Amino acid sequence: MFNICPLSPSYSPVYVHNPHLDALKDDILYHFSLGTGSHNLPAMFGDVKFVCVGGSPWRMKSFTEFIAAELAMEDPKSGYPNICAGTDRYAMYKVGPVLSVSHGMGIPSIAIMLHELIKLLHHAHCTDVTIIRIGTSGGIGLEPGTVVVTSQSVDATFLPKFEQVILGKTVVRSTDLDQSLAQELLQCSKGLNQFETVIGNTMCTLDFYEGQARLDGAFCSYTEAEKQEYLLKAKEAGVCNIEMESSVFAAMCKLSGLQAAVVCVTLLDRLKGDQLSSSHEVLNNYQLRPQILVGSYIKKQLKAKAENR
Amino acid sequence: MFNICPLSPSYSPVYVHNPHLDALKDDILYHFSLGTGSHNLPAMFGDVKFVCVGGSPWRMKSFTEFIAAELAMEDPKSGYPNICAGTDRYAMYKVGPVLSVSHGMGIPSIAIMLHELIKLLHHAHCTDVTIIRIGTSGGIGLEPGTVVVTSQSVDATFLPKFEQVILGKTVVRSTDLDQSLAQELLQCSKGLNQFETVIGNTMCTLDFYEGQARLDGAFCSYTEAEKQEYLLKAKEAGVCNIEMESSVFAAMCKLSGLQAAVVCVTLLDRLKGDQLSSSHEVLNNYQLRPQILVGSYIKKQLKAKAENR
Repeated sequence: MFNICPLSPSYSPVYVHNPHLDALKDDILYHFSLGTGSHNLPAMFGDVKFVCVGGSPWRMKSFTEFIAAELAMEDPKSGYPNICAGTDRYAMYKVGPVLSVSHGMGIPSIAIMLHELIKLLHHAHCTDVTIIRIGTSGGIGLEPGTVVVTSQSVDATFLPKFEQVILGKTVVRSTDLDQSLAQELLQCSKGLNQFETVIGNTMCTLDFYEGQARLDGAFCSYTEAEKQEYLLKAKEAGVCNIEMESSVFAAMCKLSGLQAAVVCVTLLDRLKGDQLSSSHEVLNNYQLRPQILVGSYIKKQLKAKAENR
Repeated sequence: MFNICPLSPSYSPVYVHNPHLDALKDDILYHFSLGTGSHNLPAMFGDVKFVCVGGSPWRMKSFTEFIAAELAMEDPKSGYPNICAGTDRYAMYKVGPVLSVSHGMGIPSIAIMLHELIKLLHHAHCTDVTIIRIGTSGGIGLEPGTVVVTSQSVDATFLPKFEQVILGKTVVRSTDLDQSLAQELLQCSKGLNQFETVIGNTMCTLDFYEGQARLDGAFCSYTEAEKQEYLLKAKEAGVCNIEMESSVFAAMCKLSGLQAAVVCVTLLDRLKGDQLSSSHEVLNNYQLRPQILVGSYIKKQLKAKAENR
């Protein structure tokens, strides 16, 4: 399709890569408690242009309330019902073109959600969808509260790849994210001028304690010096922060043609400690920052689209 | 300590293996919203003898209500408050000596919970603790609704090992579970005579769709014949069911000296399909079975202990 709008450079559907799906009479999105047989997905989700995902159901509900206010789309009567109320695996909220979905903690948990989300967006015939993970992370050599927009998601050996096991064999997938979207988010933060934002690599691990060189898990077989050496090596490889979902998120979004970004705040500097000992008030303030940045970006995009109509 | 009771063959503490923990003034169990500085953990948890864990917060609350009735320990006034009410990462409930904790989906999610649970039990000076995962799974060649007590947890290549990445290097850990506890649970099920229970190997994967050879994910690069070939190879290796948490659960419980078992019901036969298309009523009935079996086991153990006093 011909490019007619600089803000929508291509009319892009959400791709599934699965020849078996057409043979399904109904497609049950089990962990959402939704399905093609039981729900009119195009009517419910066809207008979605932005999907924001994050670990905590509470945070995704609060993001929905925040974005509704930002877009002046508050509905005092609705109270933002959880669309996945039939299950407690994930929570999902929608305000206008913005869908907000929780994904739990870790690669397997977000992967289940993304398989079903990608199918949902595909079944709903959504186009030109931007998806942003708004999360928390541990920083390396950054002031706590700094927001990191991920350039590349790297594994525990600092390589930009995600290993997916299929039929017992390992398949390597790229973890590239949309660089222009990352730059737009950085610009947006400069415009806001409320907190520090940087672009850098994000290390994605399968574990929070031993996997992230913490000294405060139930098990720890290394010294403080070995921890510091590992984290400094990560820093030399361009790693600004560590979290637990970005690699599979990048890999799956790339495969399905979704424009994707990862925006995580750092809750502490891992070179200085491991425990999250800041007050709830401070941590809550930090957790709002990715929401404020992404909210501002969405508002700007929607305004520009409306002006170009 | 000398063995004085056949039901408590050894006076066994809960081990942490971390020399750094002693240097912490307070230990913040962040994902539980609990800590040694803010809570009296020995007073709150010192009497815990059984811990039951499962993916869904709702299911763990319903297990608590069920076990309270089984043990005649109902408290109509309490309503079983969530001990982790300060966070939405995990939910935790307690009735007498039985603790019930949710762990979300996948190895990373249950690993975070187990690190903090093991530290909690250690700080609370708990002894002789039995921990049982009650979950759901896909069966291989079993009638849906069959309960599988795990003999060995195996990976996607059918080997009984868990790979933990520490400082970027892979460490292999054993996934042995307590065989005598598995046999006791099987005997318990025979006594109940309400549903089929078998002992067999459980395959633990990092993904629900491609990782378990499903044909209904957003992506699928293999044929139905290749799927069947893989699942039949698993069956030949003694795999009765597939889930997403047992390997790290077995590895971490073994390291910390917890007597551990995995009891999962099969929601479908993966040789016959991939989608969970049974009615909610049927699936809910299946999900009760591990609860009924483990509830019966706990009741029997507590009764025998009381008689031996």
